[in-house]
Amino acid sequence: MPCEFKITRRVEFSETDMAGIMHFSNFFRFMETAEHAFFRSLGYSIHTTQLAAQVGWPRVHAECDYKKPLRFEDEVEVQLLVREIKERTIHYAFVFRKLGPHSPEETARGALVVACVSKDADGKMKAVPIPREIADKIEAAPQEKLA
Amino acid sequence: MPCEFKITRRVEFSETDMAGIMHFSNFFRFMETAEHAFFRSLGYSIHTTQLAAQVGWPRVHAECDYKKPLRFEDEVEVQLLVREIKERTIHYAFVFRKLGPHSPEETARGALVVACVSKDADGKMKAVPIPREIADKIEAAPQEKLA
Amino acid sequence: MPCEFKITRRVEFSETDMAGIMHFSNFFRFMETAEHAFFRSLGYSIHTTQLAAQVGWPRVHAECDYKKPLRFEDEVEVQLLVREIKERTIHYAFVFRKLGPHSPEETARGALVVACVSKDADGKMKAVPIPREIADKIEAAPQEKLA
Amino acid sequence: MPCEFKITRRVEFSETDMAGIMHFSNFFRFMETAEHAFFRSLGYSIHTTQLAAQVGWPRVHAECDYKKPLRFEDEVEVQLLVREIKERTIHYAFVFRKLGPHSPEETARGALVVACVSKDADGKMKAVPIPREIADKIEAAPQEKLA
Repeated sequence: MPCEFKITRRVEFSETDMAGIMHFSNFFRFMETAEHAFFRSLGYSIHTTQLAAQVGWPRVHAECDYKKPLRFEDEVEVQLLVREIKERTIHYAFVFRKLGPHSPEETARGALVVACVSKDADGKMKAVPIPREIADKIEAAPQEKLA
Repeated sequence: MPCEFKITRRVEFSETDMAGIMHFSNFFRFMETAEHAFFRSLGYSIHTTQLAAQVGWPRVHAECDYKKPLRFEDEVEVQLLVREIKERTIHYAFVFRKLGPHSPEETARGALVVACVSKDADGKMKAVPIPREIADKIEAAPQEKLA
Repeated sequence: MPCEFKITRRVEFSETDMAGIMHFSNFFRFMETAEHAFFRSLGYSIHTTQLAAQVGWPRVHAECDYKKPLRFEDEVEVQLLVREIKERTIHYAFVFRKLGPHSPEETARGALVVACVSKDADGKMKAVPIPREIADKIEAAPQEKLA
Repeated sequence: MPCEFKITRRVEFSETDMAGIMHFSNFFRFMETAEHAFFRSLGYSIHTTQLAAQVGWPRVHAECDYKKPLRFEDEVEVQLLVREIKERTIHYAFVFRKLGPHSPEETARGALVVACVSKDADGKMKAVPIPREIADKIEAAPQEKLA
């Protein structure tokens, strides 16, 4: 069962800031992009209408450790790893690697914790168990991958 | 009746790019911010639930002429002017001025054309007449202001 | 000589707004992304250090006409066309088409005018002739493509 | 000596996403905005040219815990607290509170760790001691504020 996924992106001009590097907030957008591509790879849109229950995935925690800057036109691989899948949350780890003529260079590590929610009659979000169709398709990555 | 409105904003670090200036796409976000503040000044949210009919305001045209760059921490005044109010659209003009120790300096001019729409039963957007409660509160700016 | 270029992108979650569609300012970021990919296709980075003269390309005009909304996960083709190349400016036209099971559907048209500048000793930007190495590689698209 | 600072902001339309709430990445932009306003309150720009040594402040760590969503036009107070000031880094904590007719409601908590760097002759960033002029103006918040 899938426990990881990789996407590749090129840093765009509008993602840089006056320090000449990718703005730190954009690493979080890249993590989310990897998460959504991971879901598509399972056969689902994150904004799915394919399931019996309409669920959403708000973030409850996000973090990133920055090691080296990314610059305009850098090609970066974002590796998503499932750290843990619980009844109502999924914990993801991310590794950012700059691609290039040499071997990939790790530039950052991140994490997201997302909750599975549905809206009740009033439109209020409430945590609910992850639908079985999805939970059955994901597993936590082995410990050595997460080290 | 109101035909103009002004807001003041300070350029944020995340709005700059590696050229050291505010990214050109952010001028459009500033125009929209002025438009929404203008609506609040009339007593409405742009995302109003106060009207009989639930309407939205998608953009049908946007443009900007850039004269001088804006930089991090610049204070900028965004002046909104109603150029024309038609049955189903509002045409806005915008003037960006950098504030500072000297007299304000014009740095850009922009325009937005927004359509008044409602969603039909299928969720499709359809242009509709601007609700009278709003149309009655706005008028076009006099020609000399728009020059 | 090249007079056009196409890129394909998927609309990301962070590019949508609460109206459920891609925020209108992001169309300008997509245009710029196409422009930069076009430059790479010519063998240059837009932020080049490969030329004798270090030049930059600030935007002097930007515009967009919106016909249909783009939504999360839509695949969109952005076609760049060189409308005109002058001594110090390049005029680009853009056509946005939503890809899908049916034939591509035009959703928006845009335009950018960019100036070629270099910085003088004080760091002030000044319009300069487009370096010959670049001007010699680009030509205006034939009229029928621009219609 | 200052150990905290507060700013107030209104959530803009372009900061929301199709889930109808402020996109999670924008909380990090708000934290940075509070940090830069804090620096201005000390008499410095974060991008200062006022100091003997030209220093920058890249982020080495960023995190956020999300409790309740923020929505379009919500007014939010961002409280910055200095958690720790070390020789080469500053650790900030942030509390987000939604303002309104009732008492402020905590919606998120965040943290940033920023390093003080200067560029060496090659343009490479290198961690350096925080300039005394700045270090002397900041102190860690008392423990009870950080609880």
